[in-house]
Amino acid sequence: MAGADWQSLEQCLEKYLPLADLQEVKRILYGSDTRRLDLPERAFEAARQCDFDLQGYAFPAAEEQIRHPRLLRVGLVQHRIPLPAKTPVAEQVSTIHRRIEAIVEVAAMCGVNIICFQEAWTMPFAFCTREKLPWTEFAESAEDGLTTRLCQKLAKKHGMVVISPILERDHDHGDVLWNTAVVISNSGAVLGKTRKNHIPRVGDFNESTYYMEGNLGHPVFQTQFGKIAVNICYGRHHPLNWLMYSINGAEIIFNPSATTGNLSESFWPIEARNAAIANHCFTCAINRVGEEHFPNEFTSGDGRKAHKDFGYFYGSSYVAAPDGSRTPGLPRNRDGLLVTELDLNLCRQMNDLWSFKMTGRYEMYARELAEAVKPNYSPHIVKE
Amino acid sequence: MAGADWQSLEQCLEKYLPLADLQEVKRILYGSDTRRLDLPERAFEAARQCDFDLQGYAFPAAEEQIRHPRLLRVGLVQHRIPLPAKTPVAEQVSTIHRRIEAIVEVAAMCGVNIICFQEAWTMPFAFCTREKLPWTEFAESAEDGLTTRLCQKLAKKHGMVVISPILERDHDHGDVLWNTAVVISNSGAVLGKTRKNHIPRVGDFNESTYYMEGNLGHPVFQTQFGKIAVNICYGRHHPLNWLMYSINGAEIIFNPSATTGNLSESFWPIEARNAAIANHCFTCAINRVGEEHFPNEFTSGDGRKAHKDFGYFYGSSYVAAPDGSRTPGLPRNRDGLLVTELDLNLCRQMNDLWSFKMTGRYEMYARELAEAVKPNYSPHIVKE
Repeated sequence: MAGADWQSLEQCLEKYLPLADLQEVKRILYGSDTRRLDLPERAFEAARQCDFDLQGYAFPAAEEQIRHPRLLRVGLVQHRIPLPAKTPVAEQVSTIHRRIEAIVEVAAMCGVNIICFQEAWTMPFAFCTREKLPWTEFAESAEDGLTTRLCQKLAKKHGMVVISPILERDHDHGDVLWNTAVVISNSGAVLGKTRKNHIPRVGDFNESTYYMEGNLGHPVFQTQFGKIAVNICYGRHHPLNWLMYSINGAEIIFNPSATTGNLSESFWPIEARNAAIANHCFTCAINRVGEEHFPNEFTSGDGRKAHKDFGYFYGSSYVAAPDGSRTPGLPRNRDGLLVTELDLNLCRQMNDLWSFKMTGRYEMYARELAEAVKPNYSPHIVKE
Repeated sequence: MAGADWQSLEQCLEKYLPLADLQEVKRILYGSDTRRLDLPERAFEAARQCDFDLQGYAFPAAEEQIRHPRLLRVGLVQHRIPLPAKTPVAEQVSTIHRRIEAIVEVAAMCGVNIICFQEAWTMPFAFCTREKLPWTEFAESAEDGLTTRLCQKLAKKHGMVVISPILERDHDHGDVLWNTAVVISNSGAVLGKTRKNHIPRVGDFNESTYYMEGNLGHPVFQTQFGKIAVNICYGRHHPLNWLMYSINGAEIIFNPSATTGNLSESFWPIEARNAAIANHCFTCAINRVGEEHFPNEFTSGDGRKAHKDFGYFYGSSYVAAPDGSRTPGLPRNRDGLLVTELDLNLCRQMNDLWSFKMTGRYEMYARELAEAVKPNYSPHIVKE
């Protein structure tokens, strides 16, 4: 069905499975049990009033002698686009701004230290239309656009690091567009930006009509709470992308996304979680929610008739830990805030236990990859 | 519980979930529905008599105009070690040989074209003991050992490609040991061998006591039925290992393994499946079954008292497809043969649809990795 009328895997399993079997199923599907976090009642009350789902979990780590626990809370926000896509651009943006401000207030009540919004969070995901106006009018300067200024205000007010993935207009380089995440320090200063490294050409996701592959490499941002990176959307399909953020020291990699049910829902629980395991770090997968309808019809390169909707964005945002465990997902059909307490000490503990970096043989792969990209590369094939 | 008394995720879900919910859960957990394969009744009868589980599935691909479907059947064999580890080596080996011969007979009835056994399939996984004798006596020449000769006989008799992962004794290079998979053509000729590229130092898996990282690179074997590679056990945690087999053209990557429940069971459904998605190929994850007890006690580096058992090998072998779908797993607690029909055309179809190779930017990563391994590398970290 892949639509709105089925809430979540977790809700279904909890409804039907006897407790002992449920525990075993969760162990296999989700790894070691994730503790529920005690969040303040007023936060739940505010979430009810604003009509979004609020869940909280905690990943513990073992106690160490020398290092104190390095606890912090991340907040993942998933939301539907509240106004129809034909509403004037400025009105759409300000309505989304107000919505997110309200959710961030609740995140602050929950003690969130780093919050991340979904990909291109201020706009409908209009790239399927291949039309330019009015959609490119959602683009803003990463350094001093309206959205960055809002995020700076929120960051300063709440002492929170804010990751704000937007459509960027690059005024200093020919006014081109980028798919960018702006990272704002809890001081309110813009810490920097990072760009989507891999751009899809898949069905409705022909985004290279608008912007190209990111040119900022794999920066990691040192925040007061830990070292973070942002792997935007389609980059989650590329294991090397996760790896380079991890090699540069990322302890948490956020993956703000926009992806629909008929396309990728069976990939969703796999990729970010595999990255957390393979790189001994936390990963945070965020997807938008709901259906988006556009004024003019468009086709999707799949033989279907022209239509005006994009398919169903299935939410299901979650956090995965380096020990292979993960939180349940937010619902498939509601706005939501997922608060997760991490002990970053778990990263090095898993690195020491599993040792994928120590045993990674990167020198060999650097050599093999450099050979493999040569035009005259001859694959290593053994024949009878 | 992580032990033998819980059969499988699939059996549990099918027992308790209403049909409509079961379908939705399977769609999210397993991707598009995998068709059951009609296997001959005499095969099921033989499997019953030999007391192993037999399941069959098929992954379809879209029809093309120029290429015919490229159908083949793979067989994955998981088995427990039938005799106690203190039994004389030659008796253990010949008992396992007879057991596997019987399973291969059934595979032949099911039309299997390529069969793969579990890691170090002729022996208990004794590396946790760190003792040398008698365990190193299970090692054999890859080219003309007893086990290779048996596999050649089976390959020729059944016209089947046989992948035989063994402990190898390398007579030509100082009599050292390797963790090796021998690939035998359906003609009966030894096509070649490939070695485990990444060696664990994790808990009971301190295998570098016995053998080191493989030195044969990432060979792909051109068989009559398609291009195959073998990523042995711990190499499944290393995305670059899968990637290089895929870059060299592998359409199916086998992952013969030996891994226990308390260690890795929540990783198991994730890693091989992520590799199938990320590399547009089929992956075949094979794990052994049951408990293995050794004559002398040993410790596991986890503070527990000395003991003689290894933990529970949880079976659960499965095949994952490049479209993100997968078969159910074989049971956690029984020997089994999983027969899966693949249409290899699905690999290029998914490559064309998702284009992870086209958008992979390997040149950038070859450069970044080459930098990152330098002793004086300075990670790309942005500070306030």
